[in-house]
Amino acid sequence: MKALVLERTRELSLRDIDLPLVVGQGDVRIAIDTVGVCGSDVHYYTHGRIGSFVVEAPMVLGHEAAGTVVEVGAAVTSLKIGDRVCMEPGIPDLSSRASKLGLYNVDPKVAFWATPPIHGVLTPEVVHPAAFTYKLPDNVSFAEAAMVEPFAVGLQAAVKAKIQPGDTAVVVGAGPIGIMSALAALAGGCSRVIVSDLVDEKLAIAGRYPGIDTVNIRRDDLRERVRQGTDGWGVDVVLEASGSPKAYDGLQDLLRPGGCLVLIGMPIEPVKLDISSIASKEIRIETVFRYANVFDRALAMIASGKVDLKPLVSETFPFEQSVAAFERASEARSTDVKIQIKM
Amino acid sequence: MKALVLERTRELSLRDIDLPLVVGQGDVRIAIDTVGVCGSDVHYYTHGRIGSFVVEAPMVLGHEAAGTVVEVGAAVTSLKIGDRVCMEPGIPDLSSRASKLGLYNVDPKVAFWATPPIHGVLTPEVVHPAAFTYKLPDNVSFAEAAMVEPFAVGLQAAVKAKIQPGDTAVVVGAGPIGIMSALAALAGGCSRVIVSDLVDEKLAIAGRYPGIDTVNIRRDDLRERVRQGTDGWGVDVVLEASGSPKAYDGLQDLLRPGGCLVLIGMPIEPVKLDISSIASKEIRIETVFRYANVFDRALAMIASGKVDLKPLVSETFPFEQSVAAFERASEARSTDVKIQIKM
Amino acid sequence: MKALVLERTRELSLRDIDLPLVVGQGDVRIAIDTVGVCGSDVHYYTHGRIGSFVVEAPMVLGHEAAGTVVEVGAAVTSLKIGDRVCMEPGIPDLSSRASKLGLYNVDPKVAFWATPPIHGVLTPEVVHPAAFTYKLPDNVSFAEAAMVEPFAVGLQAAVKAKIQPGDTAVVVGAGPIGIMSALAALAGGCSRVIVSDLVDEKLAIAGRYPGIDTVNIRRDDLRERVRQGTDGWGVDVVLEASGSPKAYDGLQDLLRPGGCLVLIGMPIEPVKLDISSIASKEIRIETVFRYANVFDRALAMIASGKVDLKPLVSETFPFEQSVAAFERASEARSTDVKIQIKM
Amino acid sequence: MKALVLERTRELSLRDIDLPLVVGQGDVRIAIDTVGVCGSDVHYYTHGRIGSFVVEAPMVLGHEAAGTVVEVGAAVTSLKIGDRVCMEPGIPDLSSRASKLGLYNVDPKVAFWATPPIHGVLTPEVVHPAAFTYKLPDNVSFAEAAMVEPFAVGLQAAVKAKIQPGDTAVVVGAGPIGIMSALAALAGGCSRVIVSDLVDEKLAIAGRYPGIDTVNIRRDDLRERVRQGTDGWGVDVVLEASGSPKAYDGLQDLLRPGGCLVLIGMPIEPVKLDISSIASKEIRIETVFRYANVFDRALAMIASGKVDLKPLVSETFPFEQSVAAFERASEARSTDVKIQIKM
Repeated sequence: MKALVLERTRELSLRDIDLPLVVGQGDVRIAIDTVGVCGSDVHYYTHGRIGSFVVEAPMVLGHEAAGTVVEVGAAVTSLKIGDRVCMEPGIPDLSSRASKLGLYNVDPKVAFWATPPIHGVLTPEVVHPAAFTYKLPDNVSFAEAAMVEPFAVGLQAAVKAKIQPGDTAVVVGAGPIGIMSALAALAGGCSRVIVSDLVDEKLAIAGRYPGIDTVNIRRDDLRERVRQGTDGWGVDVVLEASGSPKAYDGLQDLLRPGGCLVLIGMPIEPVKLDISSIASKEIRIETVFRYANVFDRALAMIASGKVDLKPLVSETFPFEQSVAAFERASEARSTDVKIQIKM
Repeated sequence: MKALVLERTRELSLRDIDLPLVVGQGDVRIAIDTVGVCGSDVHYYTHGRIGSFVVEAPMVLGHEAAGTVVEVGAAVTSLKIGDRVCMEPGIPDLSSRASKLGLYNVDPKVAFWATPPIHGVLTPEVVHPAAFTYKLPDNVSFAEAAMVEPFAVGLQAAVKAKIQPGDTAVVVGAGPIGIMSALAALAGGCSRVIVSDLVDEKLAIAGRYPGIDTVNIRRDDLRERVRQGTDGWGVDVVLEASGSPKAYDGLQDLLRPGGCLVLIGMPIEPVKLDISSIASKEIRIETVFRYANVFDRALAMIASGKVDLKPLVSETFPFEQSVAAFERASEARSTDVKIQIKM
Repeated sequence: MKALVLERTRELSLRDIDLPLVVGQGDVRIAIDTVGVCGSDVHYYTHGRIGSFVVEAPMVLGHEAAGTVVEVGAAVTSLKIGDRVCMEPGIPDLSSRASKLGLYNVDPKVAFWATPPIHGVLTPEVVHPAAFTYKLPDNVSFAEAAMVEPFAVGLQAAVKAKIQPGDTAVVVGAGPIGIMSALAALAGGCSRVIVSDLVDEKLAIAGRYPGIDTVNIRRDDLRERVRQGTDGWGVDVVLEASGSPKAYDGLQDLLRPGGCLVLIGMPIEPVKLDISSIASKEIRIETVFRYANVFDRALAMIASGKVDLKPLVSETFPFEQSVAAFERASEARSTDVKIQIKM
Repeated sequence: MKALVLERTRELSLRDIDLPLVVGQGDVRIAIDTVGVCGSDVHYYTHGRIGSFVVEAPMVLGHEAAGTVVEVGAAVTSLKIGDRVCMEPGIPDLSSRASKLGLYNVDPKVAFWATPPIHGVLTPEVVHPAAFTYKLPDNVSFAEAAMVEPFAVGLQAAVKAKIQPGDTAVVVGAGPIGIMSALAALAGGCSRVIVSDLVDEKLAIAGRYPGIDTVNIRRDDLRERVRQGTDGWGVDVVLEASGSPKAYDGLQDLLRPGGCLVLIGMPIEPVKLDISSIASKEIRIETVFRYANVFDRALAMIASGKVDLKPLVSETFPFEQSVAAFERASEARSTDVKIQIKM
């Protein structure tokens, strides 16, 4: 089967590769329609590794996918041939201690698409457990469905924040995950969200959504904006979505006493935190690792119109131009949010 | 000072009455602009009592109020003369055990406007603690601000439900509190809310809001609608806002395993619950008594446009016609949501 | 294989029956050592049904079991032959929506030992998923391990109560589940627990544990005892473990504002609750259906000495006298807590 | 009135000082019996400051106090003359936004004994709000009651951890707060606690309590001990009570997926945290600032025998030898836990 294969750092090829397509009892086979390009895909392409995950053999990329069911396993009752679906890319051991607790995303044995040595889905067909394959509402397009995966990260952050209706939030970083986190926070109950970044073009995209204010921290003092906007009280939630070590400095100053800081970004190096200052407000820090139990929520929110991801598709490439899609994504243009590939 | 006084059951008069207006260190004096008529006001008027609260002496009615600060106590720093405000009508003992826990609404010593023997605020001026007086954002009108109080009940219910982003909900009852609870649930993170009632006119008002579906249970099977709309799983949250004993029967059938039932309505008699059936889904039941710590959230949600209460004002009477306003409210027209009085 | 078979209501036989013993990849085969007799076993014996679960064909009884692993499936890594274990008797569909949320106990498809039409384990050997088979610490006996199942119900109640350190509790009902709930509440953080019942002998057993006070409500006024013991504030938690419809009346009067009522008992008929009175304290009601994710915690608590279940074994019968064991259990002697059968 | 006054860094005098003793409506006047010496008292003595709190004028030390009510304000109903009490040393603005939420400990306006410029209570009599003065159960001694304050810090940590019954925990640091945190965690539901430190004498004191294991990290590998003791899963809770920057390194390796890290220690400098590693287990980090709503719980736990603080008093000095008590405390002997002063 043809697939977009990362041969080694900086070398991609669209070529035939042998991928197993055995449909187990609880599995479905899916014809892929759309795959989004994620920052992690690009990072494997440009660096060959993310932390301790190293690409040591050719690996198919892609994990943000939607498609159509073309075969169902004998025990599958939730899906049928022809169903339009999107897929949660991590497969945990459902009998593990973490999974039994509902924390299947942090099961140490989870196998995750396009994370070495597991192949991704930039290929015409894949087999996946029905339990992690979600039927699309009729009014959700494949393009939107292929964005459920990155949106799910933002949604996991919103869930972890335990947002109360009317909360105010700051989202640090206006990249795809930052914008999607802001949208999840708003749809999840926040009355207002401030998104901060260094790049005006990114902020402009975020700022087009009602309910989102933007601050370019090159020009404006975020702390002062928060102070004025909250009568000196602080916001209820800060979502750190930049992963930039500098960004962590002073986040507690934005928060109200008893507020919550959610760390979504994954800084490569350890970062310094002023614990005494954080503790003096009894701030709770939540961390996010992918997501669990949010794909169905994400689809419900898109279908109901509470979240509009459509404006975030910057350009769509045909499968044959997958390499070009990755070239473009690796440019990291400030006006690009999401690059997608259509099979 | 002139005030709308409930002399005894079914007898109202707009007359002078002696009300203390001493402004303590932490108090403000407020010129009332708008007061909403609440079902409880009407019930005192028509029945002279609610449960153990009996009107035994003439009592000023009204507790849904907004106005303008005209005097501030010596220790008040959060408000100044001229500020437009709305007021939380219960005054707890802030040093009580419940208040220290943040549960000031269930402090046994709370004094609440227009609950015997405490006077309400259908009178030109009142004195109130600054701690329970909330400054209005510029784009929130007095009419909206006077609806913060009933909306706060719905918001308290949404907070208690611990809504997660994308949850689905059923609201039982399309009266003012039912509609406001549905709006709070939607703005608080729900993707979709079904409101049920017996009266089409009420449902029509609820159904005008995007995100709200309606079911007239005289004609349609709510359980079946939920079943179909959730693939047999059930909704995450049921908000009971009717207070009708019949309505409690079978609510657990609407809920998913592990779902939450929030009881907002206050049935006069004990109601029967099928505990074994409720327990077989491990349903959590939350109850609501007024509200605590939500007025500022409510104002933030109204100001940001997440909640639009304006369509809920059915008619506004001048203060001089307060008695007529109560006559109208006591008709309980199915097309009326909120009757307000303008001072 | 020989087993204790409930042929029909009131008819038990210890006879050979054909039971499958196929060890799947994730399964273990266990030689049963000890099985406790549960009230539900007895109820099936005496009534032939519990609610909608009706014994329509001969069924092996018993679900409180401990034993020794004698065979392990190919994929099992957590257990080995010779391990002493106890077993969680419900097997859910781990890929279900409820199980993925961590709520596998309320998965509608759960298959539970000795609940029609699923056979129980009063038989020398059973096969069970390793994921629901728990290794015993060295200092936990089989007799104790066979009580983990009923203790787990009490522990689930303690978890649901969200006990905070130092909380006070009332447990209604001094049957086995009531006593075990009291022990779980104490070990789970309560400073003091009052157990109430009508029968002095039962209360005497509960009262032997330090930290447990008892009230015979035939003689003493529980509400008054709570009032005096808490300076009029009320207890933080009430655990209803009697299932008696009368017991539900006025439970809210025992609780502090914002307290929690956990319903463990399963009344056959709907019960009346005074919602307005419950709501006026904003009481949270939690319900319990069996348990999830607590067997390992239960074993840790027994092993560390925080919970001592040994005094609760009233008498042990050999397997050959299983019928006699059930006769004895069905007498419901007030001095009996737990009858066990040793294989 | 005579008092122990910190004149400036390293200079203490027991001398007369003018302290106001006006008893307001809601206040009580207390004859002090016992005062514990806290590490913060000693730090002000030796360094003249803690963080941004600088001793710029003579200040009375001491904030861990118990005594007897000798006068009550006109509005006080909860206490009477002769009541034995202990006192919560922080006085918040009860009408503040934080206090209304139940978070009075993080009210920015809180006035706290022996924190510049507020005087402490090493003096024969003090006036305090009744709302923060707690009556002692008959079986709680003044010496124990004067330890409620430091124990409350550990209890706040246990509350923040949201311990579930049977949880396992590691406490880093065997100083007074570390030991008290371990005791709070155990009494609050943990089945087992490992306390780590560098000093054998300190560990010996902790290790005398049943349920506490100890690890000297100079000799033993804490990570390995946890791995073996939890079958490789990790503990549920880590309580960091050392404040030592080195201690923060790798704490996430001790925790299970989804575990909780509570930061009690207050490191002077920012510390490095490996966010990616912490996030890969979705660890929640809670922080602790003093305490709120736990004094009554602490007293209930001591009175019921769940927590025994008596062995932690290392030596008691008479008031006249207060300076000697501080000399001794500033030696920081490894065999000393708590030095107390008896008036």
